[in-house]
Amino acid sequence: MTREDGRQADQLRPVTITRNWLDHAQGSCLIEFGKTKVLCAASASEGVPRWRKGSGLGWVTAEYAMLPQATHDRSARESVKGRIGGRTHEISRLVGRSLRMAIDYKALGENTITIDCDVLQADGGTRTAAITGAYIALADAVEHLRRQGALVGEPLVESVAAISVGIIDGVPLLDLPYVEDVRAETDMNVVMTGSGKFVEVQGTAEGAPFDKAELDALLELAAAGCADLTRLQNEALGR
Amino acid sequence: MTREDGRQADQLRPVTITRNWLDHAQGSCLIEFGKTKVLCAASASEGVPRWRKGSGLGWVTAEYAMLPQATHDRSARESVKGRIGGRTHEISRLVGRSLRMAIDYKALGENTITIDCDVLQADGGTRTAAITGAYIALADAVEHLRRQGALVGEPLVESVAAISVGIIDGVPLLDLPYVEDVRAETDMNVVMTGSGKFVEVQGTAEGAPFDKAELDALLELAAAGCADLTRLQNEALGR
Amino acid sequence: MTREDGRQADQLRPVTITRNWLDHAQGSCLIEFGKTKVLCAASASEGVPRWRKGSGLGWVTAEYAMLPQATHDRSARESVKGRIGGRTHEISRLVGRSLRMAIDYKALGENTITIDCDVLQADGGTRTAAITGAYIALADAVEHLRRQGALVGEPLVESVAAISVGIIDGVPLLDLPYVEDVRAETDMNVVMTGSGKFVEVQGTAEGAPFDKAELDALLELAAAGCADLTRLQNEALGR
Amino acid sequence: MTREDGRQADQLRPVTITRNWLDHAQGSCLIEFGKTKVLCAASASEGVPRWRKGSGLGWVTAEYAMLPQATHDRSARESVKGRIGGRTHEISRLVGRSLRMAIDYKALGENTITIDCDVLQADGGTRTAAITGAYIALADAVEHLRRQGALVGEPLVESVAAISVGIIDGVPLLDLPYVEDVRAETDMNVVMTGSGKFVEVQGTAEGAPFDKAELDALLELAAAGCADLTRLQNEALGR
Amino acid sequence: MTREDGRQADQLRPVTITRNWLDHAQGSCLIEFGKTKVLCAASASEGVPRWRKGSGLGWVTAEYAMLPQATHDRSARESVKGRIGGRTHEISRLVGRSLRMAIDYKALGENTITIDCDVLQADGGTRTAAITGAYIALADAVEHLRRQGALVGEPLVESVAAISVGIIDGVPLLDLPYVEDVRAETDMNVVMTGSGKFVEVQGTAEGAPFDKAELDALLELAAAGCADLTRLQNEALGR
Amino acid sequence: MTREDGRQADQLRPVTITRNWLDHAQGSCLIEFGKTKVLCAASASEGVPRWRKGSGLGWVTAEYAMLPQATHDRSARESVKGRIGGRTHEISRLVGRSLRMAIDYKALGENTITIDCDVLQADGGTRTAAITGAYIALADAVEHLRRQGALVGEPLVESVAAISVGIIDGVPLLDLPYVEDVRAETDMNVVMTGSGKFVEVQGTAEGAPFDKAELDALLELAAAGCADLTRLQNEALGR
Repeated sequence: MTREDGRQADQLRPVTITRNWLDHAQGSCLIEFGKTKVLCAASASEGVPRWRKGSGLGWVTAEYAMLPQATHDRSARESVKGRIGGRTHEISRLVGRSLRMAIDYKALGENTITIDCDVLQADGGTRTAAITGAYIALADAVEHLRRQGALVGEPLVESVAAISVGIIDGVPLLDLPYVEDVRAETDMNVVMTGSGKFVEVQGTAEGAPFDKAELDALLELAAAGCADLTRLQNEALGR
Repeated sequence: MTREDGRQADQLRPVTITRNWLDHAQGSCLIEFGKTKVLCAASASEGVPRWRKGSGLGWVTAEYAMLPQATHDRSARESVKGRIGGRTHEISRLVGRSLRMAIDYKALGENTITIDCDVLQADGGTRTAAITGAYIALADAVEHLRRQGALVGEPLVESVAAISVGIIDGVPLLDLPYVEDVRAETDMNVVMTGSGKFVEVQGTAEGAPFDKAELDALLELAAAGCADLTRLQNEALGR
Repeated sequence: MTREDGRQADQLRPVTITRNWLDHAQGSCLIEFGKTKVLCAASASEGVPRWRKGSGLGWVTAEYAMLPQATHDRSARESVKGRIGGRTHEISRLVGRSLRMAIDYKALGENTITIDCDVLQADGGTRTAAITGAYIALADAVEHLRRQGALVGEPLVESVAAISVGIIDGVPLLDLPYVEDVRAETDMNVVMTGSGKFVEVQGTAEGAPFDKAELDALLELAAAGCADLTRLQNEALGR
Repeated sequence: MTREDGRQADQLRPVTITRNWLDHAQGSCLIEFGKTKVLCAASASEGVPRWRKGSGLGWVTAEYAMLPQATHDRSARESVKGRIGGRTHEISRLVGRSLRMAIDYKALGENTITIDCDVLQADGGTRTAAITGAYIALADAVEHLRRQGALVGEPLVESVAAISVGIIDGVPLLDLPYVEDVRAETDMNVVMTGSGKFVEVQGTAEGAPFDKAELDALLELAAAGCADLTRLQNEALGR
Repeated sequence: MTREDGRQADQLRPVTITRNWLDHAQGSCLIEFGKTKVLCAASASEGVPRWRKGSGLGWVTAEYAMLPQATHDRSARESVKGRIGGRTHEISRLVGRSLRMAIDYKALGENTITIDCDVLQADGGTRTAAITGAYIALADAVEHLRRQGALVGEPLVESVAAISVGIIDGVPLLDLPYVEDVRAETDMNVVMTGSGKFVEVQGTAEGAPFDKAELDALLELAAAGCADLTRLQNEALGR
Repeated sequence: MTREDGRQADQLRPVTITRNWLDHAQGSCLIEFGKTKVLCAASASEGVPRWRKGSGLGWVTAEYAMLPQATHDRSARESVKGRIGGRTHEISRLVGRSLRMAIDYKALGENTITIDCDVLQADGGTRTAAITGAYIALADAVEHLRRQGALVGEPLVESVAAISVGIIDGVPLLDLPYVEDVRAETDMNVVMTGSGKFVEVQGTAEGAPFDKAELDALLELAAAGCADLTRLQNEALGR
């Protein structure tokens, strides 16, 4: 089996991370996985939501959204429809949960970091690119708080990165673009820490249920992909 | 480690399935996993949504919701808030995807089955109880269509059941009630077919990232639990 | 004229009240008027809404809703539509007003009781079953507050019960199921206290305007029906 | 007991009906019950809603609303809040039901009349003024359809008028302004036909439950008030 | 070119201002530009929105809306649609901005004046009639605050009035009714102070772009029209 | 008076137009006016909205929005709030009207072009950058339709560009960044055709009303700015 873009089964698409793409946000990057472009921006502000006040703990939250012309055919704006769709809700929650695993709330102190991941162009893997880029914005927002003297300790306890994997015609593949995504029998998104542990494993049978051997093959591919992304994140952050 | 309700680590809570709990719906059951009570109802109607007309294929969709007093503290109605929350959206999508794996659309013909899973009381595992009970309602709705002579073939190609697993104090446990759920370091929902394959694997690090060995242990527990549930489903359906 | 279910004109359908059907709510019952099933649940909490703070008075409010598969044909969820319909609004207000007549706010102290009436299956008379069952849940929630030592006096000054009456082919009938309801020329819902006084009288000409004699006949039927329901409420509450 | 505005217990406030207050609407009037001012407008258009097409029957519907500065203290716009309140819903439904009793759908043919009742100033009795004025607008809209040759027969089979009654300090009173309305122990709105039959009877215990004798006294007052209003409607319509 | 209603190009339609049309509002008028009727009402209350508290400054805000039967064909209510349309938003903002130019916030003190402009009948020029009438209501609401002793100084620093102008068949015309408005190549709304300065100039090419000479001609017409309206405002206010 | 960024009063900020910034949209550019970055994308599709079918005429529409982190302080998403704000509505309408002036609907045939202007970073002048960039995207979408053979003639009859002008301390200035915008006494947005005519003139007194001389000075500045932008548009389009 040959992939349309000529990649090996275990090869990422070209990944570009342009750090500080924005001027106002406390942390930001434009991250590209092939043609997928996600603008990740983090704002850091003192204080926490009401339900967390006085706890001494910080808070990290995330919102994911797609511009109407990000997709091949224009899709209606959720603001115009007056409601957020299920997919948007689900991915926003996933991004938030994933990033919170990178953070020690106590060390963050009563500060809030809000991360926005806006998909400017979609070609598969938007949620995994969003998580991977959001970590960059998060790290810079933490750094901003550090320079403000607003931190209690070192809140960044881990890095997180994410990648999609899937099975097409029985072959496990890494980092699926849209054309592969729609054909996959099984589709999995994996979020991992820089130290190689799992944060989220979301595997879905699209065409047919899958067995343990297939699951294991996919996880192995994903682990290698996340390790690559972790390296690229470190480079982008100048570590 | 001892569980508060005295169960073994690999033991389900008492499961009760009361089939045909409703009179109007084409299929229904009240399913209980311990104190968790979910009312599952399926309506079967001729015709499919506009975007599927003329395809010869059927459609299955699901909606999950919670009554305000299902939880320990009353929660506001989503109808009153005027919008569906992210969690509701996410679980509705999960239930729908899981049930669609049980169905051969071609054999279903241009008919639509809509399944509602309303949580009357919540004590952990509401989404897995919902999927397990929804399958019963789905099977009866299919039977209803068969009696109407509306089917093209046998649409029920598989059964599906679901269970939650989690790790508490390092110990993998099956079927977590609320008190355990809030303490779990890792939380996983697994949907499987009656033939033992995976439909959905959703593992989330709640307190700490998890490794491959922990993942494997959880999947093994879940597989045994789903097999038990499959047996109970067959009994309920008089197979 | 013979009723389809063989009842006399002044006879209630079989009424079942299953008290404490839920585990978390401070008061609850599943009430059935024939095939109509309504789950009534009351939460009791300290404090009152902002506009009532410092008044020394309590508050009682109610919400009524219907599950999508309660009706013969599935109806869309109001949470999905993003707005509450006029009928739901109207009945919620009726239930709340009716229950507030049972309560002495001063004796309740600054506590709030919220009652949810969720129709699990509808076969006519859902609002009257809701009011009748809600009183049970209310009484148990008051009892809960009493055990907490949160009351100032005895807030339960009255019991309330409700029944529908209507005229079909010129004959006044008690407790109309759906098949009768749709044929009624006049439709009336009557809420009464245990001591036989009126709390609400809502009579509507559906097919033709009605005169005083018809109104009087309907009120007489309703008074007898409410007296029966009051007796059943007392039994359920072990009075 | 003396009423603040010096009226007898069974006396209406000054009622003014200014017919054809608007230029575009097919029927309209500004109706005033004392300081209460309601603008009633009816549009008549060919065709009926989708669910009624091909039935040969017409349709009449109504919407009631209040301007923000109609009340003593400005109230927020429902359009700004993004949702219609329960009270608005309830009254719109009441107005629509009441007017439909005046109409023979068959004679109306497949035409739709939509009536808007907008309260420009509120001083008690807005719903009853709305119904009474809406009948004028309805009659003129029917006349408009007649001139267009769009009718099948005579759709106006009855006139309808409405008035509020209530009990204050044990005394039944007709047509309550706001200052009386807030003090009433029992509050009742009665809609009647020109021939003296009941269309709607909505009695609500506000402060204390009421007995049959009180109910009868209120209905008698209301019948006389509605007869007066019927006479004023006929005058306004030049009958 | 002859105008359908026989007016000169630089002539206003008959303008009527009925001051104090309402009883409850602190200031109000019904203003008519020909068949266009707008009810303007101002409420004055102590206190300012949260974001302005402690500033010593007052606040003025406005909302514009249209009754459903104001237009030739009935339009749906924004409250029923659940959202405010772009046109409504835009005009509300314009009215608010225009009136704020008349006010010295410091002299107003921490008081809020809210102005509602509800179009009862629309025949072109509704936004300009709204602004012109709103000034009357504003002036009376300020007067009300003065009588309450709630003012710090004289907040009414200017009067404001507004008129529409447009070009039809190359001819600049003042105060366009609906029939002219739909035919205009260029459409302009001009808000001016009583002293003849510009507050808002909103010119829009409807059919063809316009040049500087046309713009100047329109502004000249508008200035004369606003001067006339200022005189009528002063008369209405008894100045 | 010296401008903070050292520009002359009549000088534009550095303008960058990156054409075809997106891969899927039929036309797109990233346009930058200093730090203001707007992503403009146009989709071209066959067919027109229902109300225009069979007219032989095409349709052009536009939506403007801002990413939450575009502003100095993060602003809430309109999709999350469930409604579009007045400012967004107003600017979307302005962009749409402006672009429609560039188009001959008849030559466009029954095709629809939808333009999205998403502000990625805001530093004043977002609406004028949006209009200027949208024209580029529009021109490329028209070109796309031409290559498809879907056009009836040449729909691009004009180019449009827009710029903001304002008065600070009595001095008219071109192209205001945020720091100047908040200080301006008068603020004006001007949309012009490539041939130097006016499409929209929107002048607003922010701090004090303005006179004819000031208006004229601002229009002159704007005309020169728009002429510069027209030249940059032509360069970007390779004309």
